[in-house]
Amino acid sequence: MVNVAILGYGTVGSGVGEIFYKNGQHISERVANEVNLKYILDLREFPGDPYADRVIHDFSIIESDPEVAVVVETMGGVGFAYDCTKRALSKGKSVVTSNKELVATHGYELLQLAKANGCSYLFEASVGGGIPILRPMSNCLAANELQEIVGILNGTTNYILTRMIRAGLSFDAALKEAQDNGYAEKDPTADIEGHDACRKICILSSLGYGRHIYPEQVPTEGISNITLSDVAYARSGGYRIKLFGRSIRRESDGKVCAYVAPHLVDEESPLANVEDVFNAILVTGDSIGDVMFYGRGAGKMPTASAVVADVMDIVRAKGKKLITWEDGGSDTTYPVDEVANRWYLRVAGDLFVDGAKRLRNGDAKDGESAFITDEAMTPPQLRAWAKGLEIRALYRVL
Amino acid sequence: MVNVAILGYGTVGSGVGEIFYKNGQHISERVANEVNLKYILDLREFPGDPYADRVIHDFSIIESDPEVAVVVETMGGVGFAYDCTKRALSKGKSVVTSNKELVATHGYELLQLAKANGCSYLFEASVGGGIPILRPMSNCLAANELQEIVGILNGTTNYILTRMIRAGLSFDAALKEAQDNGYAEKDPTADIEGHDACRKICILSSLGYGRHIYPEQVPTEGISNITLSDVAYARSGGYRIKLFGRSIRRESDGKVCAYVAPHLVDEESPLANVEDVFNAILVTGDSIGDVMFYGRGAGKMPTASAVVADVMDIVRAKGKKLITWEDGGSDTTYPVDEVANRWYLRVAGDLFVDGAKRLRNGDAKDGESAFITDEAMTPPQLRAWAKGLEIRALYRVL
Repeated sequence: MVNVAILGYGTVGSGVGEIFYKNGQHISERVANEVNLKYILDLREFPGDPYADRVIHDFSIIESDPEVAVVVETMGGVGFAYDCTKRALSKGKSVVTSNKELVATHGYELLQLAKANGCSYLFEASVGGGIPILRPMSNCLAANELQEIVGILNGTTNYILTRMIRAGLSFDAALKEAQDNGYAEKDPTADIEGHDACRKICILSSLGYGRHIYPEQVPTEGISNITLSDVAYARSGGYRIKLFGRSIRRESDGKVCAYVAPHLVDEESPLANVEDVFNAILVTGDSIGDVMFYGRGAGKMPTASAVVADVMDIVRAKGKKLITWEDGGSDTTYPVDEVANRWYLRVAGDLFVDGAKRLRNGDAKDGESAFITDEAMTPPQLRAWAKGLEIRALYRVL
Repeated sequence: MVNVAILGYGTVGSGVGEIFYKNGQHISERVANEVNLKYILDLREFPGDPYADRVIHDFSIIESDPEVAVVVETMGGVGFAYDCTKRALSKGKSVVTSNKELVATHGYELLQLAKANGCSYLFEASVGGGIPILRPMSNCLAANELQEIVGILNGTTNYILTRMIRAGLSFDAALKEAQDNGYAEKDPTADIEGHDACRKICILSSLGYGRHIYPEQVPTEGISNITLSDVAYARSGGYRIKLFGRSIRRESDGKVCAYVAPHLVDEESPLANVEDVFNAILVTGDSIGDVMFYGRGAGKMPTASAVVADVMDIVRAKGKKLITWEDGGSDTTYPVDEVANRWYLRVAGDLFVDGAKRLRNGDAKDGESAFITDEAMTPPQLRAWAKGLEIRALYRVL
């Protein structure tokens, strides 16, 4: 028998409880071992919950119970969650989490701690909710050197952009609708300013290229400046606007550039049809070429099912399921100013310019025009080329 | 040190050799063990190949060499490949293959043989080339009961359909182009009549639902009857025509219906933008919802890299990497006549009919019309509804 404790019985934590309750026998059969939910740590009580009698309020009970082999951390944040994770791993208890902030910020340290104590730290649910992505990256693509990772990593912003594109809602109206539907928080900053996507591209890049990329190394731009005019111009050129987290490994020295920013993407790209709260991650490897993973990026049950899959993996591997990467530092990354792309520009004035295709848009404001450059340019090259233009919007084209 | 033998040094087999040669050190580091290519079995010699000195012509050398722990079977077919696989597994040697025909036909038996001899039989490369799909299905989605699998499983037919849709080529012209480009065999029957997709949906369904589905249980229709007129009608309604392998698990009794047939798919579906030789597989689970895997479904290096990932998995797990499913039989499946969908029909006559939306198409032939039914119907219900109509084309709408 393997005993599990859940820390935090909120949305994801209670989803994990629900799966254990509903599919417990199926799960035990598949791992050839009885999986038992022994404790739920929360400040609240849950009368009526089938596991109401397992709710406790003191982490030290879990920490000091040698029977607990796996701890599910679904609290979030980098305070108490960080503390509990370190204490559990130090006792040789494997930890499974959906906490992307913690992994992005302290992943290397926690992986080292797991290794030193002969246990596992797994976090499939921290990126892409239910989409299996970290495991395929670490196992199935193992024979590849990865070259690029690009993804729609945040469901809230993708929902807002989809509503702007499909229903012609303004950014503010689409955000309000997302909040009304429960797809956006009351304080939506982490989503719309790209912080959530930033944490996810950090985790994907650390795993994919083998060295920790920290959030402060990732220039991050959100979607709050995107206008309906940009959406319409993009459409007129056969593009859609999407928020991407992206990272590129430079062949010459193995350094990585990671950033988060809105991009125009060709409407025939497989990334273009990723709508609403769905996420998708496109990975390019040297042998395999492009591979894309698509699914619901968030939501109680998808995320909980990814957590349970990690627990099952640990039970099967008797706690020795290892993910590792090296620590990162200033020598790990190179600046986004060295990444060349074609560009979308919206500028003041009714202009034609050499070296760019002008876009036509029935709803265009007077006295503005928009272009896509013919050539790929780095940001400094772009600034030199666009000298004299009054730029009102500027996005990369992928 | 782990010694590997490759059986069949054709396209995929030599790709495996290339990866070992190029990335050998990287691979050995990642599995913390030296992986050594000891033998290559082929009828031919390969002078100039870095592994020319390892080529042998007698399988019994491999069979009787206790140092060989892993056999890569990249011969294809169900004759000698079947024989060698049984002999290797019987000696406790793990086998990795890209041979979909063999897995679809004898998978259950070979998995049992592997289990009985304490070794592994893995075949990630048999479905979707380089797309990681079997492993995510067996690990990451393990906390789910799967409900449906639907995919674009054959790159040749998808290339042909893409050229019909995009360039207006007829089926025959598109097939010829695919042959000229090396995307279709001289004898394209296995691809265009759907047999290849059939084998793949058998493997996916066996793994996904836990019991072997055999090719003869899967009604299979190819793409050779699709006309440009159907392509144009589909487009006018906002659809594209794609060849799908599909299987559905019935909740009430757990039986599965699997079939291969062309479908109309909404152009906003993530499956609609899967073009050229790319494949995609959409899996629906009870907790996770829809998840899609996308990538090159064939090709030397993608397929070879999936084979190598399996070899690495076996080395890591010391030969004990188990995939299993139960045997199937006539009680495993239910007839496709019980699956309801909306339908596309092209019929003789310039007609309007109740219960269906007529499609408009500028290139339409005189004296024909096409419809999409308003309601989902099973084939018998459809036949009753369409009584009196002279049907010239009939496809499900997904």
